[in-house]
Amino acid sequence: MTQNVSVVLAARPNGKPRPSDFELVEETLPELAASEILLKNHYVSLDAGFRNWMDEGSGDDVLPAMPLGAPVMGLVLGEVLASRSPEFAPGEMVMARLAWQQYSITDAGDFLVRLPEKREAPLSYYVGVLGDTGLSAYFGMTDIAKPRPGETVLVSAAGGGVGSIAGQVGQILGARAVGIAGGPEKCARLRTELHYDDTVDYQREADLDSQLRSACPDGVDVYFDNVGGALLENVLEHINEGARVVSCGAVATYGQPSAGPTNLFQLVTKQASMTGFLTHTRADRYPEARAQLQRWINAGQIVVPEYCKDGIEQVGPAFCDLFAGNNFGKTVVRL
Amino acid sequence: MTQNVSVVLAARPNGKPRPSDFELVEETLPELAASEILLKNHYVSLDAGFRNWMDEGSGDDVLPAMPLGAPVMGLVLGEVLASRSPEFAPGEMVMARLAWQQYSITDAGDFLVRLPEKREAPLSYYVGVLGDTGLSAYFGMTDIAKPRPGETVLVSAAGGGVGSIAGQVGQILGARAVGIAGGPEKCARLRTELHYDDTVDYQREADLDSQLRSACPDGVDVYFDNVGGALLENVLEHINEGARVVSCGAVATYGQPSAGPTNLFQLVTKQASMTGFLTHTRADRYPEARAQLQRWINAGQIVVPEYCKDGIEQVGPAFCDLFAGNNFGKTVVRL
Repeated sequence: MTQNVSVVLAARPNGKPRPSDFELVEETLPELAASEILLKNHYVSLDAGFRNWMDEGSGDDVLPAMPLGAPVMGLVLGEVLASRSPEFAPGEMVMARLAWQQYSITDAGDFLVRLPEKREAPLSYYVGVLGDTGLSAYFGMTDIAKPRPGETVLVSAAGGGVGSIAGQVGQILGARAVGIAGGPEKCARLRTELHYDDTVDYQREADLDSQLRSACPDGVDVYFDNVGGALLENVLEHINEGARVVSCGAVATYGQPSAGPTNLFQLVTKQASMTGFLTHTRADRYPEARAQLQRWINAGQIVVPEYCKDGIEQVGPAFCDLFAGNNFGKTVVRL
Repeated sequence: MTQNVSVVLAARPNGKPRPSDFELVEETLPELAASEILLKNHYVSLDAGFRNWMDEGSGDDVLPAMPLGAPVMGLVLGEVLASRSPEFAPGEMVMARLAWQQYSITDAGDFLVRLPEKREAPLSYYVGVLGDTGLSAYFGMTDIAKPRPGETVLVSAAGGGVGSIAGQVGQILGARAVGIAGGPEKCARLRTELHYDDTVDYQREADLDSQLRSACPDGVDVYFDNVGGALLENVLEHINEGARVVSCGAVATYGQPSAGPTNLFQLVTKQASMTGFLTHTRADRYPEARAQLQRWINAGQIVVPEYCKDGIEQVGPAFCDLFAGNNFGKTVVRL
């Protein structure tokens, strides 16, 4: 009898999640039913957006709020151990929105994404730069932001999984990349390791405006926003005519009330746009996007930072690290 | 010696403008200098957006704040009485951003728009439905909103100059038009005179959400926003996947601090966009747009409501009427 350890939602987070909101539960794996497959999970991907399903009454009909006491919903990458589905065979690697567990049992369905058999990258990249995280950076930048050579691309949470890739994609497209991150150490890593052209330290609130002016002397043409909240209001004061704000995430507002920007009229006076998007609705274009990102990685044009922890007991704390800003690069846990 | 009466900015408005913020001043017209032309103004167009230049320190380098004691900047339509410019001849009709005055003296330049010699519409239409007002509705709807047949177009300040046209253009493009206005009388006029499919009375704040749900049972695909502020937050809760918010104006925020929407994350979950625009940057397309609007008017597909006052002394009060919501249709003063 195989034992399975899951991370369950022990308490609904009050604002930012804390490690005590999560608990480990061990149980015996049931037998596979018809059409089910058993996955041994190798990586859990930590993504701040899942915080949105942790509040009572959050979510919607399609994806309701996570139940208390049940395994926490998340993105996992696993290997098929056993299959009662004709579609998947043992040994195949798949990704899906499942739960924070050592083993998963799931229906083989449309929502399981098969990894390519020939892989040029480490396994963890498939939930990171080659998964929804990197694809968010890719689609947000190439489909919506569309920076032109010489333009300035400003990225918030630039040290995060998406942000660390977004600025580099902007540079490949010919733009100057400026990253916003918390603290001098992260800002330095953005400049030295990820080759961001300049950085803004949002923890120095007092001179945020002068930092933005100095880092973006020609104004902001693209704001790739992973944060929302008060920072968005600051940035809107610096946008150029025709600027594109790409709303990728809003970690500042997840699970906590946050005032909206009072200066949205900047969109009118600057003839600018603010556009939200979801990556998973572009699943038909994943192969093309993943191939392009792989080429850029192979050519050394994209550096891939990872914040990797080990063991199922680290999943909850690693999720909390996202909100504390402790991570640099894509946050994953290896099981 | 011709006497000229001007409306000057007597006091900077505190929030919404009041009639006492404006004063009449009479002076003798000077002689024309070389290259200048003298206009006898027939219509003053009242546009809420000009409120943005009435505060101390407002505006920018290109268009700074209006000076206290000087004639108020606005859109006027006048007839050339005398010309020392080779470009304009007496008798021609022109429009320009000049000031609230009976007569204007100006340099002949790029900013004077000549009316066509053959006119199919009343003169006042050229500052209204065939001027920046109607063109804002036209470009906002055809360039940005692009409603598809069967979609729902929601218009705020639907009884205003722009809003009264925007919904009708939406209907011509095949959409269902829903108008937001203040009070049962205006809402009734939207439905009966302008053929809006349904209306929402924003003065009934208590049941705004249920009104929106009932008037837009299939959700909102296009929000043509002339108001901004708190109403935008209400509407964002009702947008559909792929919705387009067209930011045309934000009368609720002009000259008064206004909280921003706290639910901008709706743009992400609905993959929606919010786009601001200015009409005057599309001046090269005015002839095409004006011809299209004229055809729709001739065919009876667009009804043109006007809120018309008479006499230079009515210009200040008519401007205040915009903010009190007293107007229905385009607000103009005939001189």
